Amino acid sequence: MPELRKDPVIGRWVIISAERGKRPSDFLIASEKKRGGFCPFCEGNEDKTPPEVLAYRAPGTLPNKPGWRIRVVSNKYPALQIEGELKRRGNGVYDFMNGVGAHEVIIETPDHDKDLFDLDVTQIEDVWWATRDRILDLQKDSRFQYILVFKNHGAAAGASLEHTHSQLIATPIIPKRVLEELNGFQKHYGYKERCIFCDMIRQEKETDKRIVLENDRFIAFEPFAPRFPFETWILPKNHILHFENSQKEDYADLARIMKETVARINRALSDPPYNFVIHTAPLTEDNYQNFHWHIEFIPKLTKIAGFEWGSGFYINPTPPEDAAKFLNEIEL
Amino acid sequence: MPELRKDPVIGRWVIISAERGKRPSDFLIASEKKRGGFCPFCEGNEDKTPPEVLAYRAPGTLPNKPGWRIRVVSNKYPALQIEGELKRRGNGVYDFMNGVGAHEVIIETPDHDKDLFDLDVTQIEDVWWATRDRILDLQKDSRFQYILVFKNHGAAAGASLEHTHSQLIATPIIPKRVLEELNGFQKHYGYKERCIFCDMIRQEKETDKRIVLENDRFIAFEPFAPRFPFETWILPKNHILHFENSQKEDYADLARIMKETVARINRALSDPPYNFVIHTAPLTEDNYQNFHWHIEFIPKLTKIAGFEWGSGFYINPTPPEDAAKFLNEIEL
Repeated sequence: MPELRKDPVIGRWVIISAERGKRPSDFLIASEKKRGGFCPFCEGNEDKTPPEVLAYRAPGTLPNKPGWRIRVVSNKYPALQIEGELKRRGNGVYDFMNGVGAHEVIIETPDHDKDLFDLDVTQIEDVWWATRDRILDLQKDSRFQYILVFKNHGAAAGASLEHTHSQLIATPIIPKRVLEELNGFQKHYGYKERCIFCDMIRQEKETDKRIVLENDRFIAFEPFAPRFPFETWILPKNHILHFENSQKEDYADLARIMKETVARINRALSDPPYNFVIHTAPLTEDNYQNFHWHIEFIPKLTKIAGFEWGSGFYINPTPPEDAAKFLNEIEL
Repeated sequence: MPELRKDPVIGRWVIISAERGKRPSDFLIASEKKRGGFCPFCEGNEDKTPPEVLAYRAPGTLPNKPGWRIRVVSNKYPALQIEGELKRRGNGVYDFMNGVGAHEVIIETPDHDKDLFDLDVTQIEDVWWATRDRILDLQKDSRFQYILVFKNHGAAAGASLEHTHSQLIATPIIPKRVLEELNGFQKHYGYKERCIFCDMIRQEKETDKRIVLENDRFIAFEPFAPRFPFETWILPKNHILHFENSQKEDYADLARIMKETVARINRALSDPPYNFVIHTAPLTEDNYQNFHWHIEFIPKLTKIAGFEWGSGFYINPTPPEDAAKFLNEIEL
């Protein structure tokens, strides 16, 4: 079973997941792993994945058989494991927790050759609906405090399979990065009695130097202090805590704005590898009324080196104002 | 001039350093940049770097001419700039600071074909002395609060030049990662009235499951909650706050333990790219009496993907006990 371990100084949890490969020689092979060939996510290969936990399928088709538009399965090599109790224990200065959680894969289309944002807007919208359905189901499990949805696109961004998919991991604790955001929202609210992201949207619209796109319900902009060149944030313009509490019109507008934003980034940067993460409020309803859900989209262009690891600072060679201008000038 | 910008939610500073390259096309070229060819760090090419700020040289040789063993120069493309005032300013929800700092390169040998840890122990020792000399000089500048020393080895770890070198960046604020450690040390001290790293060393020696090497003054071990496979920490066994306050015997033992640790890692993992960082106490002497300086050594084997970016969690497929056992069994 995977194990959660806490750094005794800074309190950072890591998942020690020996099931995912361990001998030093595995790293040497991994870096040379060939792409292409057999794909377990393609239609017809449903028996090569764990059984589906959700699928949107044509009427009359059977589970784990062809005929699906979107299919969600457990990760075959999960970072956390669904069975087991949430036991905490200590040993001297060190703390452990059982690696309990859920790790699922959302196969976004049967088509092997398309990325998520090449799909029709309605299909992208369905991916948000499938994500929402899984969150609503998993949140019934009281062991989980948070569900992180993310996507790795391209080998350099950590994708191990080429066929387009996103993932979700339900964790028994609120991740450190999310806690930092929650604390930041709380601090601003304590001082101003306003949401920091609502304030930020107002200021971005006034100055209009970093906005990439906007529609009825969403805004996409280069953040003021981006870690990476062309880092782009996508926010609902209304103050909504949870991704999964969005309405039909929200998911449609989100699909539209993401599709065009990524098309512009792909044109500007020749289809870079990328990651995105959805930051939504925790499942536990406590004190997070100030939070404002959002997506952080990160093209993988620069390397993280010693200075970044050691400091937590980031060096970004592209001012976000320049990136926004460039993306605005792209002709699609 | 580079600019420091603060994320308004989580307070993370980034350095927007447009001098280091900015158009989208630069990223495309950068990824195909050839290695080899002309090297500005080789002996005889001293006029191709900024003038030296320190060199250990043969008697009778002239500054910025051949005859050096170790040479320290300003970075030609500095992340922060030495001239200027430390002005802070705001704009609505956003905060800026001038990108004032120092960014220097320590060229560890004239020999183009050797890595730092291939060198003789006495030469490695001299690298620590040169690093110390630079820290003692830069700390006279009251604008700086911290000096981070780090090394990027190999293109995948962010090195842009092959010739072995380390770097230091003096910053006008204490970096977030270091602050988190300082707070962690403080918390443990508040509870136990002991240093957490001194406690950790005692526990590691008792259990002896994660130790890689030990000599009179240093210990190298796989940390209990490592972010990465084969992440290795090197600590002085005595409670010392500052790297730069070490004695001659310390630097000699540090050179010896690092050389053998890296030799074992190189053998185990076929000379992986790596980063290391030195975490020393801040220049401002305030409340940091509990800190314990150390080196974090990170072989670059895994990719940082969406889950890590979004959560601040790390998934590590290699338990540190397995890594230590493997490194111990290596025959050199």
